[in-house]
Amino acid sequence: MKLTISPLALFLVACGIAYPQIQNQPDDGQWVMAAKNYASTRYSTLTQINTGNVAGLQLKWSFSTGSLRGNEAAPLIVNNTMYIVTPYPNVLYALDLTKPGAPAKWAYEPRPAASSQGVACCDVVNRGAAYYNGKIYYNLLDDETVAVDATTGKQVWRTKLGDINNGESITMAPIVAKGKVIVGNSGGEFGVRGWLTGLDADTGKIAWRAYGAGPDKDVLIGPNFKPFYAQDRGKDLGVSSWPRDAWKIGGAAAWGWVSYDPDLDLIYYGTSNPGPWNPDQRPGDNKWSSTLFARRPETGEAIWAYQTNPHDLHDYDDVNENILLDLTINGQPRKVLAHPDRNGRMYIMDRTTGEVLSAEPFAYVNSTLSVDVKTGKLNLNPSKITGFKTVRDICPAPPGGKDWQPSAFSPQTGLIYIPHNNLCFEEQGTQANYIAGTPYVGMNVRMYAGPGGNRGFFTAWDPVHAKKVWSIPEMFPAWSGTVVTAGGVVFYGTMDGWFKALDARSGKELWKFKLGSGTVGQPVSYKGPDGKQYIAILCGVGGWSGAVVSGGLNPVDGTGALGFLNAMGDLGKYTTKGGMLYVFGLP
Amino acid sequence: MKLTISPLALFLVACGIAYPQIQNQPDDGQWVMAAKNYASTRYSTLTQINTGNVAGLQLKWSFSTGSLRGNEAAPLIVNNTMYIVTPYPNVLYALDLTKPGAPAKWAYEPRPAASSQGVACCDVVNRGAAYYNGKIYYNLLDDETVAVDATTGKQVWRTKLGDINNGESITMAPIVAKGKVIVGNSGGEFGVRGWLTGLDADTGKIAWRAYGAGPDKDVLIGPNFKPFYAQDRGKDLGVSSWPRDAWKIGGAAAWGWVSYDPDLDLIYYGTSNPGPWNPDQRPGDNKWSSTLFARRPETGEAIWAYQTNPHDLHDYDDVNENILLDLTINGQPRKVLAHPDRNGRMYIMDRTTGEVLSAEPFAYVNSTLSVDVKTGKLNLNPSKITGFKTVRDICPAPPGGKDWQPSAFSPQTGLIYIPHNNLCFEEQGTQANYIAGTPYVGMNVRMYAGPGGNRGFFTAWDPVHAKKVWSIPEMFPAWSGTVVTAGGVVFYGTMDGWFKALDARSGKELWKFKLGSGTVGQPVSYKGPDGKQYIAILCGVGGWSGAVVSGGLNPVDGTGALGFLNAMGDLGKYTTKGGMLYVFGLP
Repeated sequence: MKLTISPLALFLVACGIAYPQIQNQPDDGQWVMAAKNYASTRYSTLTQINTGNVAGLQLKWSFSTGSLRGNEAAPLIVNNTMYIVTPYPNVLYALDLTKPGAPAKWAYEPRPAASSQGVACCDVVNRGAAYYNGKIYYNLLDDETVAVDATTGKQVWRTKLGDINNGESITMAPIVAKGKVIVGNSGGEFGVRGWLTGLDADTGKIAWRAYGAGPDKDVLIGPNFKPFYAQDRGKDLGVSSWPRDAWKIGGAAAWGWVSYDPDLDLIYYGTSNPGPWNPDQRPGDNKWSSTLFARRPETGEAIWAYQTNPHDLHDYDDVNENILLDLTINGQPRKVLAHPDRNGRMYIMDRTTGEVLSAEPFAYVNSTLSVDVKTGKLNLNPSKITGFKTVRDICPAPPGGKDWQPSAFSPQTGLIYIPHNNLCFEEQGTQANYIAGTPYVGMNVRMYAGPGGNRGFFTAWDPVHAKKVWSIPEMFPAWSGTVVTAGGVVFYGTMDGWFKALDARSGKELWKFKLGSGTVGQPVSYKGPDGKQYIAILCGVGGWSGAVVSGGLNPVDGTGALGFLNAMGDLGKYTTKGGMLYVFGLP
Repeated sequence: MKLTISPLALFLVACGIAYPQIQNQPDDGQWVMAAKNYASTRYSTLTQINTGNVAGLQLKWSFSTGSLRGNEAAPLIVNNTMYIVTPYPNVLYALDLTKPGAPAKWAYEPRPAASSQGVACCDVVNRGAAYYNGKIYYNLLDDETVAVDATTGKQVWRTKLGDINNGESITMAPIVAKGKVIVGNSGGEFGVRGWLTGLDADTGKIAWRAYGAGPDKDVLIGPNFKPFYAQDRGKDLGVSSWPRDAWKIGGAAAWGWVSYDPDLDLIYYGTSNPGPWNPDQRPGDNKWSSTLFARRPETGEAIWAYQTNPHDLHDYDDVNENILLDLTINGQPRKVLAHPDRNGRMYIMDRTTGEVLSAEPFAYVNSTLSVDVKTGKLNLNPSKITGFKTVRDICPAPPGGKDWQPSAFSPQTGLIYIPHNNLCFEEQGTQANYIAGTPYVGMNVRMYAGPGGNRGFFTAWDPVHAKKVWSIPEMFPAWSGTVVTAGGVVFYGTMDGWFKALDARSGKELWKFKLGSGTVGQPVSYKGPDGKQYIAILCGVGGWSGAVVSGGLNPVDGTGALGFLNAMGDLGKYTTKGGMLYVFGLP
């Protein structure tokens, strides 16, 4: 594994902006992990499709995933083969790109336990796979990780990591770093004990497990653990910051994104909300829920941590993407991570130390007032503190300023492209009682559109100056991934099914195409065997935001889907269930 | 309702070929019934898309039907709105063509009884709707017909026609003729008592019902009934040609196509196989199973009948399309119907009298030797007679030389375009016992590819000279509908998902596009509000032929899906489940 710096990146370093092209191969037009590269930039260096010709983009072929639940996965493209993971039952298809439209070369059907569908809080989704060294790695809803031979489709290993009877499931896309497959569980709404695990990529053997709460030895906190801020220092905070034994059912799962900096040899990821949602049931900081961690990939050892949302009040998971960038900020070159948090703030942090450099809102926020970058303290709005009471007009809502839907960064523009939400909510705290494998929430929630009445935005953000550059309102939450290219084009999709291409500098819409169903998928860009550039995306609305359609929920009960239903009752008027890959190219 | 003859048609009359452009409006580029017009030609006079430019066809937009079962319906296009009927649960979507890609204007959700899925022999399909006088008419799987206001989507009436507890369901596309909605039931494999019914288009009241077996009064046979051939004449043949009371559970359903000649004021349709399949359980001709009928649309009165397959031995339903053409045959102008039968023969019949003019095989046939057009007798191959025994290598198989998948006729070429099967089978007769609402078959069947090893063909047939002009082999049964245009192009799709355009004269492939799932849908051609020509088709493999994929059947049991599974076990390697509308146009 080596660090590759493209000539363009070197040029940009000279100009004050750089990004580490850190992935397990150079950008040869493939797409080997959901986030494109270890830095999670989702930036493609391909230029054939550009601002001058993107208006002529055409559908080249399509492929039905055979599943009508939320199709959230990023396709992978490796060695002229495209790999697609479906929602439960998590079939893996291999499509031969040398024969567009040919039948799948093979389908790997792992048949995860059907009962796992019952512990998926927010649709039976899967966010994709990772390729490494001849194998495709991905997770099954029933807490398994599998390695599949990328050529033959034969299972190489399959490892059980959790127990659905405890409410655990796995939906995240793994990465492979230093020979370890990095996987985390889901289940913050079921009172699981969250963890991140490293598996040996060759054998599937569990190399380490880092829990999200509990004693230091379980969290893999040792002598090398150096948090930047005082409040994150101390022995066994993962026990002492909870009521007695509550850490054992306290969530802090790791169902989101993992980035990796090979130079610093650190992986970055965040933990989920604590359980239950009702904060009055868990006095204390509830470490290490809603926390960003830097760890060693080979051992899981914690190097630093920053609890973004101590004693979380609003389901502000910390699992969103961390984009690794080398920026010049206030005249200083800094190795940063950019983390658009559920709480609506874009954290720009020194990824070596965990210092917060800025944390300005990219979405409408009234739940918090500011972040003191000196102390790392999040200043709460006293009128928006939840618990055993009713609180109204809290922004952002539990799905956050944004949820898992990943942003992209272009070194050409220096901008981060954020698909996000504009949702507020009201809550009433109730008593949650823990019963293993059942919802453990303790909060009745109703969400609705934030200021302006639109429920989403697609926003371009300047991470150096910590400010919004432009923003495009969307009727529904912008809940797809995004990809930005060296052709100067940024792509994303909407829950009512429009797949859009914008000028990455101006935000001007250059092209749009109506997919058969709304999309919550992750677009990718790749070079085909014919040397041409293609853009691929799955449609198939669903996930937490789209459960009203994919799960056929009755919108009459606004508290359904953990309160999201109240905000999305009209989605079914705008789109239908679906599950289809679309591959676009130039004529 | 008036007969419209286009100038082109008049020209063709002068040249010895004509076709009655008989439909409830001129061909203004709409598509108001599944078969395009009463004559069921599926011929579009649009010419913008033609042999010179069809290679540039592009996907313009798409729409997910939200159902992964066999999507067999023909879209309708009326007043700049497209109407789509889904498989069970039979949702009707109205799509505004003035805003391509806009959300559905409305969805009508009738919620048919879920238990109806259990009596659908061959997937929970629906073949489409009919437009008439401001309303959309279609059938629900649970034996209901509905009328929906085409503008508002409000239900105008809903009539229950049968009882799923007896194994009855409805899958066919109705037509509206002389103010009557013509509907027939399905269930030949459940021992139903088949019928065709006329409902008042305004009120939904049942105006008449013509049973497929039983006493003449039930079959609506009266003094005006004049069959051409002696064997179809006699009193109460629908009783006397069966063992005692067997006609009451003898099938003869009417689940296929209905055509209409307003000039002769006759509707044409055929009845299904008799039940059970095992012929030794029902000695006699089993009238009026597997019979072509001409009836008055207002009263249902039978005018003539011709039993194509007396005492059916091979599940040779007679329900396939009847294309109404005015041809000059042997120097004589004849009003004919062209009927490509399940038995593999193309019947060209005088539609005024029921006389057979020719009945030559369009598919490989060894089950019958010939049809004597003088006597109307079908000469059986003695070695292929089924019953309580084992018989091998019978061709065609139960799905026939072709099944319901409808052909098209072009007055430009004078050719009929037939999507069809190339399947043979072996059978072993067993004792079937009638239990209401359960399968009543009595035959173990295994099907396999016919001569050449391919399972389908797309064939161009000259109905005047009763001969094949060209034929294109397909790996799987060609189980989609077809549309032919005045642009000289004929379209059809394949079960592995290729949507193809051929030169209608030569059969040369001009374009193909890979749909996301195999198609068993019916392509249509229409003029959009922008004046441009479009081609639309649903993908979503399924139906009898595709049940292995849409129903998730285990191909290990070759006798599954009534023996079709043996021939289709590999379909899942070539396609996935789907349900998507594709709309194509020129750049």
